[in-house]
Amino acid sequence: MSSDLPSTESAAANPLLVEVTRGGQVESRHRAALAVVDVEGKVALSAGGHERPVYARSAIKSLQAIALVESGAADAFDVSEAELALACASHKGEPRHVETATGWLARLGLSVDDLECGPQLPGYEPALIELLAAGGAATQAHNNCSGKHSGFLTLAKHLGAPTAGYVKYEHPVQQRILGVLEAMTGLDLSAAPRGVDGCGIPVIGIPLGNMALAMARLGAPDDQPEPRQAACARIRKAVAAHPFMVSGTGCFDTRVMELTGERALIKTGAEGVYCAAFPELGLGAAIKVDDGAGRAAEILMGRLLSHFGILGEDQAAALGGLLTAPVLNRAGLTVGEIRPAADIPF
Amino acid sequence: MSSDLPSTESAAANPLLVEVTRGGQVESRHRAALAVVDVEGKVALSAGGHERPVYARSAIKSLQAIALVESGAADAFDVSEAELALACASHKGEPRHVETATGWLARLGLSVDDLECGPQLPGYEPALIELLAAGGAATQAHNNCSGKHSGFLTLAKHLGAPTAGYVKYEHPVQQRILGVLEAMTGLDLSAAPRGVDGCGIPVIGIPLGNMALAMARLGAPDDQPEPRQAACARIRKAVAAHPFMVSGTGCFDTRVMELTGERALIKTGAEGVYCAAFPELGLGAAIKVDDGAGRAAEILMGRLLSHFGILGEDQAAALGGLLTAPVLNRAGLTVGEIRPAADIPF
Repeated sequence: MSSDLPSTESAAANPLLVEVTRGGQVESRHRAALAVVDVEGKVALSAGGHERPVYARSAIKSLQAIALVESGAADAFDVSEAELALACASHKGEPRHVETATGWLARLGLSVDDLECGPQLPGYEPALIELLAAGGAATQAHNNCSGKHSGFLTLAKHLGAPTAGYVKYEHPVQQRILGVLEAMTGLDLSAAPRGVDGCGIPVIGIPLGNMALAMARLGAPDDQPEPRQAACARIRKAVAAHPFMVSGTGCFDTRVMELTGERALIKTGAEGVYCAAFPELGLGAAIKVDDGAGRAAEILMGRLLSHFGILGEDQAAALGGLLTAPVLNRAGLTVGEIRPAADIPF
Repeated sequence: MSSDLPSTESAAANPLLVEVTRGGQVESRHRAALAVVDVEGKVALSAGGHERPVYARSAIKSLQAIALVESGAADAFDVSEAELALACASHKGEPRHVETATGWLARLGLSVDDLECGPQLPGYEPALIELLAAGGAATQAHNNCSGKHSGFLTLAKHLGAPTAGYVKYEHPVQQRILGVLEAMTGLDLSAAPRGVDGCGIPVIGIPLGNMALAMARLGAPDDQPEPRQAACARIRKAVAAHPFMVSGTGCFDTRVMELTGERALIKTGAEGVYCAAFPELGLGAAIKVDDGAGRAAEILMGRLLSHFGILGEDQAAALGGLLTAPVLNRAGLTVGEIRPAADIPF
């Protein structure tokens, strides 16, 4: 499908920002670009080339959820705060995640069969073992995106649109979301590069700077219409109140937001993307690791949280191994670390 | 343990050799270095900086197995051809792999408890599901390195050394292997950077060029002592006869060597390393992807196999999606591809 694509430019090497050590030397190296901007689009911090369009993947689920709330769909179907947080999640398929999704679908008069995200085994190993040992199997409700898709189905029903095919670019649900993304990024996205995400929905190429602008506006949407302002506030509150729903046991997003509450809304995405809103500061952030490594994106997000004072020293200490992560062997011994590179510019 | 390490040099950007597309654009990019050398150490092909020491990880299990064979340990304990192939494996924990390891251990008068590699769930999803659905759990026999460790235990017993602690750098088993690596790489490794592998054994920093030289000699060991020449031939034959043992169902190493037989001995390692011997050509190869991505190392190894004519057009066609790999979403649809970058120099 894409073999006639222009190849990537080899000259534009982004800076080396994260390295992985093992014993006596650096073993692997990650290059990345990032942008932190205010609600006017002014760049507060950047590294690497942040003009190139990037697929945000799951890192902008909170922006996609705006359409669910501002349309009135969430109210019409009594979407709870925990369910709204799950709509913004890449969850680990733990029982509470799966039960929340299936309960929501039942209230819509729908079932797991209506989800078009494909099945996935739980990402949290104890939940995986429990599921399979009980004779269970991967379902679409276990898919890390099942909450987002439940939100899409809610919106489809509210709009009176067919629920089947809600993942397609042309479907009213995805077109509504595209409109929200255009307003929040300040871009006409009709001709932007696009593709299909792991869960079947469209992905749209957006420069990191504009992605960060959209996140800044999620935190401080004063220039947006009133229903959108209210939707952003409701989403921020839901995520802060239910950080477990957004990811899962021991995960970076969950553990950080348990400490920060509404001071930070952070969200990981596939292929090394990370987005954040820092509402108190009126800033938004977007990171893309060149090679797609989530382990490097996490280290960079941790560094941003410390740099901007979102995490104090005590909180950083409480997070311990998440900010400079140990590399463990299978016996559980520390054999190296994942850390910011020495010449990281922040 | 390593926070006082010198940081990586940021200037030395290796060339961009592999890219991952999704829909209308390149999504992620992988830089790498590689060297292909002959048995004299003459460079036949290279890219990037290949002088920097690199941990070979699991990519040199065939070199480590030389000590098992040349010492007489393999003969003393009736190690079969399939078991010898398993000693060179990063296997997927499928039933045949696990049964082969446990049968071998029983013949030594040992058990899974003597393996010091740590437990690991099977890497092949149907085997994982089968194990857990039957009420089973991850054991050290399922660890992808259980064959290598069974070989280490065999050598320990043959040397009359304690079996406990066989993973330690100072243990006679690891010292024997270090001696083999020095002879094959042509380096004094006593002061080389070192660390601990995922399975607990030492890893030693070796420049890619010397790693490739050792692999060339594995394929054509004419300058080595006769017992080592015989050991190399026996290892090559074992791996070629039992490619399933070396990896598993559908895996790159297994599927390639099912086609090439003794014309290529290829082996993947963690953190984006790949090694190969091409005995007919008298060449050895070593690849390291900067960021540690195995998906990129596979694409580069496939390219080398085609470039040097190890895979003919028909064989390359039979491998199909392994040489330019599709990116699939959870519904199984192709949404992108992993492919050599346009300006790859071979």
